[in-house]
Amino acid sequence: MANKADILMLSACELRTRLALGALSALDLVEACIDRIEAREPEIHAWAWFDADFARQQAKALDAQRQAGRPIGALHGLPVALKDIIDTAKIPTENGCPLDAGRIPFKDAAIVARLKAAGAVIMGKTVTTELAYMHAGATRNPLNTAHTPGGSSSGSAAAVADGMVPLAIGTQTGGSVIRPASYCGVTGFKPSFGAIPRTGVLMQSPTLDTLGVFARTPADAALLTEVLMGYDAGDPATTPAPVPPLLSVATSEPPLKPVFAFLRPPGWDKADPQLHAAFDELIEALGDQVFEVPLPNAFNEAAEIRARINFAEMAKYYYRYGKSLDALGPRTQEALNTGNATLARDYLAALDWADVLYAGLGEIFERCDAILCPAATGPAPEGLEYTGDAIFNGLWTLTGTPAVTVPAFTAENGLPMGVQFVAARGNDARLLRNANWFTGWLSEAAA
Amino acid sequence: MANKADILMLSACELRTRLALGALSALDLVEACIDRIEAREPEIHAWAWFDADFARQQAKALDAQRQAGRPIGALHGLPVALKDIIDTAKIPTENGCPLDAGRIPFKDAAIVARLKAAGAVIMGKTVTTELAYMHAGATRNPLNTAHTPGGSSSGSAAAVADGMVPLAIGTQTGGSVIRPASYCGVTGFKPSFGAIPRTGVLMQSPTLDTLGVFARTPADAALLTEVLMGYDAGDPATTPAPVPPLLSVATSEPPLKPVFAFLRPPGWDKADPQLHAAFDELIEALGDQVFEVPLPNAFNEAAEIRARINFAEMAKYYYRYGKSLDALGPRTQEALNTGNATLARDYLAALDWADVLYAGLGEIFERCDAILCPAATGPAPEGLEYTGDAIFNGLWTLTGTPAVTVPAFTAENGLPMGVQFVAARGNDARLLRNANWFTGWLSEAAA
Repeated sequence: MANKADILMLSACELRTRLALGALSALDLVEACIDRIEAREPEIHAWAWFDADFARQQAKALDAQRQAGRPIGALHGLPVALKDIIDTAKIPTENGCPLDAGRIPFKDAAIVARLKAAGAVIMGKTVTTELAYMHAGATRNPLNTAHTPGGSSSGSAAAVADGMVPLAIGTQTGGSVIRPASYCGVTGFKPSFGAIPRTGVLMQSPTLDTLGVFARTPADAALLTEVLMGYDAGDPATTPAPVPPLLSVATSEPPLKPVFAFLRPPGWDKADPQLHAAFDELIEALGDQVFEVPLPNAFNEAAEIRARINFAEMAKYYYRYGKSLDALGPRTQEALNTGNATLARDYLAALDWADVLYAGLGEIFERCDAILCPAATGPAPEGLEYTGDAIFNGLWTLTGTPAVTVPAFTAENGLPMGVQFVAARGNDARLLRNANWFTGWLSEAAA
Repeated sequence: MANKADILMLSACELRTRLALGALSALDLVEACIDRIEAREPEIHAWAWFDADFARQQAKALDAQRQAGRPIGALHGLPVALKDIIDTAKIPTENGCPLDAGRIPFKDAAIVARLKAAGAVIMGKTVTTELAYMHAGATRNPLNTAHTPGGSSSGSAAAVADGMVPLAIGTQTGGSVIRPASYCGVTGFKPSFGAIPRTGVLMQSPTLDTLGVFARTPADAALLTEVLMGYDAGDPATTPAPVPPLLSVATSEPPLKPVFAFLRPPGWDKADPQLHAAFDELIEALGDQVFEVPLPNAFNEAAEIRARINFAEMAKYYYRYGKSLDALGPRTQEALNTGNATLARDYLAALDWADVLYAGLGEIFERCDAILCPAATGPAPEGLEYTGDAIFNGLWTLTGTPAVTVPAFTAENGLPMGVQFVAARGNDARLLRNANWFTGWLSEAAA
């Protein structure tokens, strides 16, 4: 058996192979994760709920299952962390909110049932910002604990980045998967809107809320997402349709060298100059595999449109929290106040924009394999109060396009900055293949 | 050939048989309708656009098609009138609104294409209230021209009632099919929400807007609706699914004598005492085929909830009309002002209610073949300004349940009052069968 610490940085795909072959037991893997968590959690604060014995019990049962020759699932023995807005039966799910302290759901979220059926180990619940909005939790960036890990899926990003788990799940309503993944230097994947059912997940803004994953590689993200995807009657955003073979496509060679459309999204000018310089270099290195496209002016409205939908729906879906407004953080209060004042006709008009803007991307998607753009405005900001600017993410949440980030650059302070790839709705598998190609290209370029 | 006037009151099903056999030509039928329209229109004002030669040309082409032995459609040769909010290519569609005077659509609405493919004769466009809301048009009730025909599908109801056409199409957002049908003494059918695509029809409130039909009998309503139903990509309320065999089910014998659940809907106490008395008598006559059910108190909210959705969506979808508010009728202005002031969170909260209320009907639908209730609060009110109270209709629009009215009673002033049958969503065919059974039972009881 490999040294405990050595296996912590292996990819989920590699771990999965070892687990399936019996070269690694689920218990050994879980023990390694437990050791890491116990050593690091006092500093990182990634977990909202963690019970080592609960994890061990699942691992032992999975090992017994494999040893008995019974079928094993696609995620057999792999520890997965869940953002604490994802309901887990009999396990606290507190939504990062003092008003939900002690809340214990009766039922698992749809995706938790899928994880269990696939043989994953539910490792625990990770810290979320308050109600998955912007009031920060206690989590620190494992790469530099004076910096935010980003939000709102703070603990999920930090737990994967710190080697505590190979896989974690989060949600994105503005930029809550891609941004923290970029800040923490891991792969973050927000699939197409409606790909993963949200049944049993705290609803903030059903037009925008999207489940996503944190992993070490695009292939790992594909492995986990493929298990989570597919129709669930409880989520009207999902539709009965076959789940695409994400993992096999993501790990296959692109038939042709991919071509990317680089765009400077609204907010570009205010981004960190280090980011500008890094992208200049990247564009040059990619050569004829990249061309630049401008975004029509209408996209300058996207942030305001997205926020209007977000706040209006938040005011409705967080109504019970709003009744105890004083118990909430100032950012949450402000969002609720804005949402409470939003007129129905303005909200309804905003809903039309998602399709209008998406239509505006059509011509770009026809000419490239993926859009290439920054994942965040720079490296993780210093301090823990502010989880960072989601300006480079909200557009892709609003248009429901799949987006993936992989770490690409290192800022002067040593913190990572991710690139983001975006594809047309439903093109999740090929998007991951292109991100996978890019990581290979990047390590060759660096070598 | 039958005398021209004699064929005007035949059912569409009977006309269809004669047309298919060649016992009646499409042109003869259309000429009879034209005669009637030309004689009566100066008094009734049912038509927003009518061109006798346009109708004749279609009839001649259809006759030639039949005579050449080519296949004929399900509505071969049947004249159909269209509410003037349903787009017709190259034919004015003015939405009953001065701001749309002279408006000529480029494309047919989805249902107009279906009518043409089925061999119907597009007879013309019928008067709608302003923008299908409550500001009355010029149409008079053919049974007593001092009385309203009801709204908003005023001309469609009047045209069928007066024998100008055997079939007509309208829409219902509150009570705009069932109420005018009841006032004019014809069959009105509002199918399940999402049954008929609304692509190319003026959108007032997409959560509520429902296309419906006017006819002489439930079987005729089935004949027409079966042609109109089915998926259209332009209307997200429709879903790809087989169209039920409405006509064959509607004209079949119920396997058992139907049992109805009679309910006194919110507003019952304010209804015309003649209506109360008529229902007392009907319930007694139906004997063990009817039982009374109470509605839970939550249903008292239905009218306010429906209005909130209607006005909020109207404020958004009629935004361009609202910019010229002074050009609109006072009722339309008031609705737009209310809608403009509606908060997004209140609108979103109202949307939840449709399913909550529908769930509250579940137990009733399990115990009966259809709900039995009044179609309107009494006979058509005197005067033309006010199109009548839709209180007995809005609940069924909000819950998306299919509803059909057939004339059942005569008030002291000689005007008809309809009964209304309502079924669970998707039970359109069996609802029509039960309404068909009822009309037979009623004529036997009267004999």
